[in-house]
Amino acid sequence: MRAYIADIARYEGQQVTIRGWLHNRRSSGKIHFLIVRDGTGFIQAVMSKAAVGDEAFTRADHLSQETSLSVAGTVRADARARGGYEIDVSGIEVHGESHDYPVTPKEHGVDYLLDRRHLWIRSERQTAILRVRHEVIDAVRDFFNSRGFILCDTPIFTPAACEGTTTLFPVQYFEDTTAFLTQSGQLYNEANAMALGRVYCFGPTFRAEKSKTRRHLTEFWMVEPEMAYADLNDVIELAEGLVASVVARVLERRRAELQILERDTATLETIRVPFPRITYDQAAELLKDKGQPFQYGTDLGGGDETVLSEHFDRPVCITHYPAAVKAFYMKTDPQQPDKALCVDVLAPEGYGEIIGGGQREDDLERLQRRIQEHQLPQEAFEWYLDLRRYGTVPHGGFGMGIERCVSWICKLEHVRETIPYPRMLYRLYP
Amino acid sequence: MRAYIADIARYEGQQVTIRGWLHNRRSSGKIHFLIVRDGTGFIQAVMSKAAVGDEAFTRADHLSQETSLSVAGTVRADARARGGYEIDVSGIEVHGESHDYPVTPKEHGVDYLLDRRHLWIRSERQTAILRVRHEVIDAVRDFFNSRGFILCDTPIFTPAACEGTTTLFPVQYFEDTTAFLTQSGQLYNEANAMALGRVYCFGPTFRAEKSKTRRHLTEFWMVEPEMAYADLNDVIELAEGLVASVVARVLERRRAELQILERDTATLETIRVPFPRITYDQAAELLKDKGQPFQYGTDLGGGDETVLSEHFDRPVCITHYPAAVKAFYMKTDPQQPDKALCVDVLAPEGYGEIIGGGQREDDLERLQRRIQEHQLPQEAFEWYLDLRRYGTVPHGGFGMGIERCVSWICKLEHVRETIPYPRMLYRLYP
Repeated sequence: MRAYIADIARYEGQQVTIRGWLHNRRSSGKIHFLIVRDGTGFIQAVMSKAAVGDEAFTRADHLSQETSLSVAGTVRADARARGGYEIDVSGIEVHGESHDYPVTPKEHGVDYLLDRRHLWIRSERQTAILRVRHEVIDAVRDFFNSRGFILCDTPIFTPAACEGTTTLFPVQYFEDTTAFLTQSGQLYNEANAMALGRVYCFGPTFRAEKSKTRRHLTEFWMVEPEMAYADLNDVIELAEGLVASVVARVLERRRAELQILERDTATLETIRVPFPRITYDQAAELLKDKGQPFQYGTDLGGGDETVLSEHFDRPVCITHYPAAVKAFYMKTDPQQPDKALCVDVLAPEGYGEIIGGGQREDDLERLQRRIQEHQLPQEAFEWYLDLRRYGTVPHGGFGMGIERCVSWICKLEHVRETIPYPRMLYRLYP
Repeated sequence: MRAYIADIARYEGQQVTIRGWLHNRRSSGKIHFLIVRDGTGFIQAVMSKAAVGDEAFTRADHLSQETSLSVAGTVRADARARGGYEIDVSGIEVHGESHDYPVTPKEHGVDYLLDRRHLWIRSERQTAILRVRHEVIDAVRDFFNSRGFILCDTPIFTPAACEGTTTLFPVQYFEDTTAFLTQSGQLYNEANAMALGRVYCFGPTFRAEKSKTRRHLTEFWMVEPEMAYADLNDVIELAEGLVASVVARVLERRRAELQILERDTATLETIRVPFPRITYDQAAELLKDKGQPFQYGTDLGGGDETVLSEHFDRPVCITHYPAAVKAFYMKTDPQQPDKALCVDVLAPEGYGEIIGGGQREDDLERLQRRIQEHQLPQEAFEWYLDLRRYGTVPHGGFGMGIERCVSWICKLEHVRETIPYPRMLYRLYP
């Protein structure tokens, strides 16, 4: 019977066949110890000369890393084994050989590995990260679906710039049109929220930023919820709930993967809502106290975020940035019109921003004024202004970057490992 | 207490506030009947002069379509009411006015509506379609997640053409590089399946086709599963299971929406696995019998698919197309080398192809020969060939187009209504 390694416990004492690849092999006289992987996990298969006979045993002498094979044998519980089980091999069938597999257990440089990303993802560490990514995405969807949000995909091809054109990727759209790849589903999300109440989009977004930092990809996935009849507080509570829910789910279902990654889970275990909330002004004070050079009135930079996010043991919500550094669609605070009703959520442990959002300007005239102040072409936003012409309501939402979130939860050094095929300034292959 | 219309049954006899928009109003002397929508549903709010007083009643005389308002009142069961409940209004608060709302209950042309898609999606019919879309996507994900498949996103930016460049959208990738938008995650999926066993990708895909048919969008969403250690039969069974599962879920949870769309559900109710399976040769015979002009050896066209899919009362699987008309990576049938081990699933009722897939060529030399025969540049596929160099295994998968699937389940005339912001040859706005 074919079995997957992840389900092996239910086959104890039974004869099964595992179909996978040889991850590693060591031999001691009359026994081969084969570490086999099948995509769902790793297991040790113990092959003794006595059980399989001389000929088969000798053939297995030459099996090399990543040879594809089916291993038949009996599942035996063994408390010392990883995962608690081993297989006593009765037979092996080789499907495909593998000579000089280029990604060996030794150290390779990161460019070497990225050039071989299609093979690198077979490693134990990379499969663990990709399974955490899967779980994060699944947890995000369950969070919104269980609360009555409707997934409402926003377009990838957009006719105009959302926030300026410098970081947009242009696409030749048939002969004589240029389209731009979306940077955010936000504006469309607002229209969708007026139709469906509470919505989210979840897709790839694109930024032509020439940044070569550990936080930047040119192509990354973002989930963006938007709610009609919501204020800044509703947005913050939704963001807190989402982050706490995602972390709890990964701890519940992907503890084995976090262990492979040697992730200290203590800091994840303590994450509970509500998160600490500070204003931009308080953040500026804190940076000053910590001796971080920061000019009041400017946006927080990556270094500032690192300092702030190391200060708190949980994610922290920073609200009320200067309106001048935020996008035109942000609603300004009626109590302090130079401040925006916005929130950024910084992940702890130095990871910085994972969420950005806030309440949207719902007044037609104020929004038109903001478009002028930002020197944006009003005609491109006529449809967006319609949302204020026909039954405007207070509303808001946010975007959460999946790769930054996975990077923090796995405690990685760089977001490039959080996506199967990272795209960066100089990286478009494979 | 704020309530959503979808949950109204649990508030019977209680005082609630609905926050939404005025969909329609009729008045008879001393009563206003207000149809209110909040994105989760529609409900009739009954406002009597006696209950709210002269002044409030008179103000409500002028409420126009899509005015945003909060309606407070008591929930009352009424068997004649749609959804089974009405609200006896005690008070109304208007948030935003709406004058001359451009999408009225009267007939509009489709270009007029597409120009106002951001408003059109507020209509009862469009919200019903979008909720079915949401459910289809959720059902797809649950299907794969519950079977142990790992979501593994494939890149949108790709360096080379998967199947020729004529239908690719080029992107200027920084100064001196051209990237192409993905047409399929297929090749990357195969690498991912070798790492994680069973995977799927689910994202937007792009085809620069100048087709103006009812089945074509330039930007559409596709789910693509891929399995290591799988043959054509495994692929067909997975495809059948997926389609049956998605249809069952929509029938279970979105019957109200199908009713709004006046979808006759009888043909959906009968969908059970297994589906009928015919070969390409049998399909060609059938087309001949039906007097459809068809040249044996060519691919099935849209008209051919329509004829075939009208012949069966369930989805039908067509296998073993001529290898010559299929992609280079299709495995040929060892028993008849001019045929591919492939499957297309046609939806019934004339909808045609919703799924295409098959077993992949897993032999290095045969794959290299196919690349040559298709005059594709081998160097672009070196990484893909690595999958046959290092532990190759039989494997396969398919792609299912979400919009075509939603179009069929909702029985729409055109796929453009199945996505919030359709992108077509001459349509990039809003």
